[in-house]
Amino acid sequence: MSTPPTGPAAGPQRRGRGRRPAHEVRADVLRAAGALLLGGGLTALTFDRVARESGVSRTTLHKWWPSVGSLALDGYFHTVEDTLAFPDTDDLRADITTQLRHFVELMTTTPAGRLLTELIGRSQTDPDLAAEYRRLYSSARRQLATDRFRRAQEAGQIRPGIDVRVLVDQLWGAVYHRLLIPDEPVDEAFADALVDNLFDGVVQTP
Amino acid sequence: MSTPPTGPAAGPQRRGRGRRPAHEVRADVLRAAGALLLGGGLTALTFDRVARESGVSRTTLHKWWPSVGSLALDGYFHTVEDTLAFPDTDDLRADITTQLRHFVELMTTTPAGRLLTELIGRSQTDPDLAAEYRRLYSSARRQLATDRFRRAQEAGQIRPGIDVRVLVDQLWGAVYHRLLIPDEPVDEAFADALVDNLFDGVVQTP
Repeated sequence: MSTPPTGPAAGPQRRGRGRRPAHEVRADVLRAAGALLLGGGLTALTFDRVARESGVSRTTLHKWWPSVGSLALDGYFHTVEDTLAFPDTDDLRADITTQLRHFVELMTTTPAGRLLTELIGRSQTDPDLAAEYRRLYSSARRQLATDRFRRAQEAGQIRPGIDVRVLVDQLWGAVYHRLLIPDEPVDEAFADALVDNLFDGVVQTP
Repeated sequence: MSTPPTGPAAGPQRRGRGRRPAHEVRADVLRAAGALLLGGGLTALTFDRVARESGVSRTTLHKWWPSVGSLALDGYFHTVEDTLAFPDTDDLRADITTQLRHFVELMTTTPAGRLLTELIGRSQTDPDLAAEYRRLYSSARRQLATDRFRRAQEAGQIRPGIDVRVLVDQLWGAVYHRLLIPDEPVDEAFADALVDNLFDGVVQTP
């Protein structure tokens, strides 16, 4: 089977998938992969099933995604992009709280939590997967969060000296910590406490 | 081979290890396991090597520690207990900073970081190891940290409404997040920023 051309889309009379632009084919694949992952977790995702669901050949899939892990990460990132989008109102605290609650809900009420902890787990002894995890998922998610905080910092809402990259570890990283080592619950109260501690500070002021 | 008695220690003329009290034998084993781990990481630890180094029989080791993972966790906990002890002066911020810097140093300059991330990684798909990890390591470490913060809260240094368990995830959990997903460095500046953000709060006050 030939690879999808990158030129303009064929007219409506062309129904063959091979003629559609690459970005549309890619979107179909990522959607199919994401749906399988959120339906059944990592074990539900195989090249065969994605090929069947998306109508894209295995050859094409293997060419664009070297491993099932890379397909999972890419599909997952695009599938949760809207759910995890940062609101951008004037109320930074409300925006972060809203996003963090969505993140906690996604991690605890869908197979997403299990999927990510399993990929993070495997990546501890699989350097290729670790590199793919950072390239296709974590570094882009970090960037979206730091972008939101940098805008807040430029607007004078976050103190100038704060390294906003550290906030990512103290909010979403703290959630991952409880997901990976489940000594304590991951719930909305936890999400709210994470935000409160950083926004209000924890020390008693005289 | 008989198991070590739990009665009083035999006199100095008794050199046979089988006659020593169980707690001494146990301490020898944990010391040997910890030294192997901090020397060469998880791959350096086998029942055979611990038996050889500690002079305790494999039969006894297997009876007390059902898996090499449980022996690793128990040995590691006891080996780093002093290094990770919490200072308890009147200056809470200095105490936490000191401890957190020690933790970062241990994680980044010894095989401890690799050991723990590998055990956390494996525990994502090994429920027995996950349970052992919490029983023999993480829950006890969490307890030591929350004890220190509760004393500070009782002394009026931490605001009354703060759930101090959340601070564990925003300090040590944030470090684990960077160790497990190494998008950003783990260093002293990071440790200090973690403390500063929580103690001072991050928002600009008018």
